Amino acid sequence: MIITLKRKSSKQEEAKVIEKIKKLGYVPHISRGVDITIIGMIGEFAEKYKDVFESMEEVDHISEIEKPYKLASREFKKENTVVKLPYGIEVGGNKVPVIAGPCAIESKAVLLEIGKIVKDAGGTILRGGAFKPRSSPYTFQGLGEKGLKYMAYAGKKLEMPTVSEAMSVEQVPLLSEYCDIIQIGARNIQNYDLLKACGKQKKPVLLKRGMATTIKEWLLSAEYILSQGNYNVMLCERGIRTFETATRFTLDLNAVPVIKKMTHLPVVLDPSHGIGIREHVPTMAKACLAAGADAIALEIHPRPEEALSDGPQSLLPDQYNKLMAELKVLAKALDREI
Amino acid sequence: MIITLKRKSSKQEEAKVIEKIKKLGYVPHISRGVDITIIGMIGEFAEKYKDVFESMEEVDHISEIEKPYKLASREFKKENTVVKLPYGIEVGGNKVPVIAGPCAIESKAVLLEIGKIVKDAGGTILRGGAFKPRSSPYTFQGLGEKGLKYMAYAGKKLEMPTVSEAMSVEQVPLLSEYCDIIQIGARNIQNYDLLKACGKQKKPVLLKRGMATTIKEWLLSAEYILSQGNYNVMLCERGIRTFETATRFTLDLNAVPVIKKMTHLPVVLDPSHGIGIREHVPTMAKACLAAGADAIALEIHPRPEEALSDGPQSLLPDQYNKLMAELKVLAKALDREI
Amino acid sequence: MIITLKRKSSKQEEAKVIEKIKKLGYVPHISRGVDITIIGMIGEFAEKYKDVFESMEEVDHISEIEKPYKLASREFKKENTVVKLPYGIEVGGNKVPVIAGPCAIESKAVLLEIGKIVKDAGGTILRGGAFKPRSSPYTFQGLGEKGLKYMAYAGKKLEMPTVSEAMSVEQVPLLSEYCDIIQIGARNIQNYDLLKACGKQKKPVLLKRGMATTIKEWLLSAEYILSQGNYNVMLCERGIRTFETATRFTLDLNAVPVIKKMTHLPVVLDPSHGIGIREHVPTMAKACLAAGADAIALEIHPRPEEALSDGPQSLLPDQYNKLMAELKVLAKALDREI
Amino acid sequence: MIITLKRKSSKQEEAKVIEKIKKLGYVPHISRGVDITIIGMIGEFAEKYKDVFESMEEVDHISEIEKPYKLASREFKKENTVVKLPYGIEVGGNKVPVIAGPCAIESKAVLLEIGKIVKDAGGTILRGGAFKPRSSPYTFQGLGEKGLKYMAYAGKKLEMPTVSEAMSVEQVPLLSEYCDIIQIGARNIQNYDLLKACGKQKKPVLLKRGMATTIKEWLLSAEYILSQGNYNVMLCERGIRTFETATRFTLDLNAVPVIKKMTHLPVVLDPSHGIGIREHVPTMAKACLAAGADAIALEIHPRPEEALSDGPQSLLPDQYNKLMAELKVLAKALDREI
Repeated sequence: MIITLKRKSSKQEEAKVIEKIKKLGYVPHISRGVDITIIGMIGEFAEKYKDVFESMEEVDHISEIEKPYKLASREFKKENTVVKLPYGIEVGGNKVPVIAGPCAIESKAVLLEIGKIVKDAGGTILRGGAFKPRSSPYTFQGLGEKGLKYMAYAGKKLEMPTVSEAMSVEQVPLLSEYCDIIQIGARNIQNYDLLKACGKQKKPVLLKRGMATTIKEWLLSAEYILSQGNYNVMLCERGIRTFETATRFTLDLNAVPVIKKMTHLPVVLDPSHGIGIREHVPTMAKACLAAGADAIALEIHPRPEEALSDGPQSLLPDQYNKLMAELKVLAKALDREI
Repeated sequence: MIITLKRKSSKQEEAKVIEKIKKLGYVPHISRGVDITIIGMIGEFAEKYKDVFESMEEVDHISEIEKPYKLASREFKKENTVVKLPYGIEVGGNKVPVIAGPCAIESKAVLLEIGKIVKDAGGTILRGGAFKPRSSPYTFQGLGEKGLKYMAYAGKKLEMPTVSEAMSVEQVPLLSEYCDIIQIGARNIQNYDLLKACGKQKKPVLLKRGMATTIKEWLLSAEYILSQGNYNVMLCERGIRTFETATRFTLDLNAVPVIKKMTHLPVVLDPSHGIGIREHVPTMAKACLAAGADAIALEIHPRPEEALSDGPQSLLPDQYNKLMAELKVLAKALDREI
Repeated sequence: MIITLKRKSSKQEEAKVIEKIKKLGYVPHISRGVDITIIGMIGEFAEKYKDVFESMEEVDHISEIEKPYKLASREFKKENTVVKLPYGIEVGGNKVPVIAGPCAIESKAVLLEIGKIVKDAGGTILRGGAFKPRSSPYTFQGLGEKGLKYMAYAGKKLEMPTVSEAMSVEQVPLLSEYCDIIQIGARNIQNYDLLKACGKQKKPVLLKRGMATTIKEWLLSAEYILSQGNYNVMLCERGIRTFETATRFTLDLNAVPVIKKMTHLPVVLDPSHGIGIREHVPTMAKACLAAGADAIALEIHPRPEEALSDGPQSLLPDQYNKLMAELKVLAKALDREI
Repeated sequence: MIITLKRKSSKQEEAKVIEKIKKLGYVPHISRGVDITIIGMIGEFAEKYKDVFESMEEVDHISEIEKPYKLASREFKKENTVVKLPYGIEVGGNKVPVIAGPCAIESKAVLLEIGKIVKDAGGTILRGGAFKPRSSPYTFQGLGEKGLKYMAYAGKKLEMPTVSEAMSVEQVPLLSEYCDIIQIGARNIQNYDLLKACGKQKKPVLLKRGMATTIKEWLLSAEYILSQGNYNVMLCERGIRTFETATRFTLDLNAVPVIKKMTHLPVVLDPSHGIGIREHVPTMAKACLAAGADAIALEIHPRPEEALSDGPQSLLPDQYNKLMAELKVLAKALDREI
């Protein structure tokens, strides 16, 4: 952490800051320019005290140089984390699993119908929401536990690991029981009690980036889970909110190489929610693969106009099948596998 | 809801959409232009079916004309909602209460010290966090229930209503017991289970806008609380996230007149979190009052460099006292009262 | 400028950076932490070499501590700049002039009609566009030189200084001849040739912030004008682009206290373009005054549905008259004058 | 254009709007719901009158259904525009040219050195700035005409078409004389006089999207060029400004499939400026190709720490060579060619 003092600060003001640094157990490094003095306070967790120094009248501003997260960082663990799932599926290795299914679980029959389509074309993880975070209280909120039971049934029947979302601490044990991966949705990226609850159980967690979450905050949210002992965290980019309204969100592919350099955790991409327009999902899915995705999440539905949520972005089975074939060719060109 | 069909659509395609509208129990209104046909589907909750029509291949796009929230709207209730609190304090009337206190409750003594400063200069509601949503798991997370007890004690002693934040469903009964207002923080604006839990208890709720929440989504989140039977909801603007990094957030004063026209609920403004720079908080507080704030929330601390969170934006007692005097003069010029 | 080296950098890597600093004529200040070494390069215009060091493989990142602008800074000139205009009008003093008029000049008669309304209620500067930057090539583009002649005539007749926009270098001499202030619009904030051309003539310049311009970039654009010898620059905030679509732009009042601390130049606020909704302009105008505006710019039109551009945000004469009365009362409460 | 009247509007209010529509020569289509009446005004350029109706007190809001641009739209021209350049190079066909070179032209020798590297690995268009838009007036502003002469020389020598930026109307004839493509930079996307000047000459134009330009505004800016008779316009996405600061800009790949559906013009992608971090440019370049880029623009420099601008994002020759090899393999998997 670098502390820049106010321009033309006095020896006395300088001393006050230095004393504070020493009191906290750090060693100050002082550099005096013509008008400006800067003081380095370098050491583990120095950034924790950012507020303290920013609050001092003598200080102009702080520049962070250490990272505020630790377990999530590449410095802590050099090798990529590979999350191991049932049926031999892995996320974070050379193979890029496709996670697909309906947005919401509607019935056992429809889920199985869709799951079969997913599997036949090469998708390996089944998704579907039982608890649905909907911006309006008057729209379909999901089947709840019944939906999770359908999910567990479908996963077993089709021999596919499953993923579904937990919206609150109370739902975590249910998700942990019925599913193979617990998803934390974009709206709950800073629901810290939920993060901690997921950190205390054993199932892998898929942590979606919020629509206004910086890369740094995203890693700090992951750190909440890791710090409770659960190291199987997958990050999922699903679109940020920008001024552009022609697409539902702006899927931020730039974040992929950047965050993969900062962390060892695998990165999943969700082009369906990101762009939110069915016909453009395949193009974006291919861009995701090229950007370095460790897994790709897709929504599909055979009759989107009957879907209980997010119909406009769900791929039709034919679109999905065509895309899977294209992704396989593309993966090879990128030295990966689908 | 206006459904615009794809350019040069056939009679058959048109018929498919019309049939769907009728099946849902609505009456279609058709307007045919040279190349484009639009179909009106007007009636209560038509917007609920937006996804259904957006999913149809025949449809180009949907324009919403009805509002998706109801209880929160001015159409539902014309007169301003006035939230009544203990000690005769009201939010939403002509008088503009100032809500002030430390960011986090640190000890009984410091809370009382600050509360006295708040009250002496004319502040009428005491704030302070016992459960703190912090982006890093390694920083101070609040005193928890102990803090709430200090808050209840200070409120009683100083005869001031109190407000503190609930971060999860489990904390709601505690907040409901110890405090007069439950705050839902910006990070939990779409934590729907938390919203519902607050809607099921009786204490008024202060609902902070999220950093990327549209005005429409903000009202939908309020609707979640109202729809459970709790009509005492106050909205709180505390800054949105934009590209500008010279301020902590961008306090969106534009939202105040706009949302006050759309809803009957009172609007609280939080310039401390919004701009996040101590010396500029007083200027912004005055702008908030002029923009039509029904209450103003401030952070103050006598020794900000010792504060356990958000020190850089906390006003010093002298700054607070001076600001209160200025706000009183300003309120009079605006035909309001502090 | 602080140069943070890559984690665990070698002596050799360190030496390479130090040598570069010395070669550029600066003195390096070195601070070594356990894992991280930082090197201060402090001195005038060190920030100019930011790119050079960011390009070096040895460097992790750069923290700027000096400001890249100079003439625009408070360090260069402590006292507020007061721009002096004809008829004794000043911008930057205790009195807050109201700049008002139609968005576009439509005819001599309408301009005079509006100008009289402006003046009668206390507005002191007349605005109106002769060259209109319109996003579509198929909409009204302004009367051009004819409009400027009307403007000069109206200004003289009503004894009011005038302001109008220059969209290109070629228009600068015309504006300089006919008007008292040259406006540079938001879309041209980084049209550097236009900035330089305005810097080379004598008339004061009103520089509008672009819709995605940071405060730092805004001051750098002002610096382009100042560096050519024209010190009469007024900054104008008119709304930034954010994710919120309920308002036309997000008028950023937070920028006012922040930029006024950084620069001696006066700051004008334009609530009409900022919020873009007629009925909410008066509320925002009052918030602008409270936020510290040195002048307020308003659009008015007696028959907005006939206006050739921006009708939806133009105040009606009655609204304008009422607002002016309110602003006068408010100004007094803020120790200023209208 | 759909005009939604204020809730519970009277027959009289309705009549006023209808009369206005008829007066403008359009046919109104009326749909009455229980509380809300909507009126369709459908026909060519109806959107031109949006402001007129938004200005009427009787109107609640307007929904646009026609597109405000015409020549740039797929409706106007179904087939992809293929821009033909010297030496048989085309942009918009199945082959994806790589446009590469230094950010700024520094000397004849360095330009030739870089141009040779570009060509040897398969790049086909040479880029380099002679007029540089720099946010600070104190940094290198380009070699001007001398730079353009070097560019013309290098292009001829290496048999490559060339592209360079025009920052103002006066520079257009120079660019038109010396280069094969005129670039309009992101900062000038709404410099309408410059757009028109480029529309009046014959050389193809590369139009960069501004950092806060919506897709609709981008096409309207293209329309300014097309409407003057120059149909050889290439659109270039180079990153938008969002809240995320870990990357220089947010390259918006979502815009590619969306805009390619709306327009027949080719779309060029610039990952160098977009992400702004050298080591991540190759990954983003691959994502650009997968997203459907018709050409890819890259910055390269053999000694980035000596580059006079944008060194941190310039690829080293080895990185460029490796990337070109990878792009060739990838292109084949996407049924395209480099």
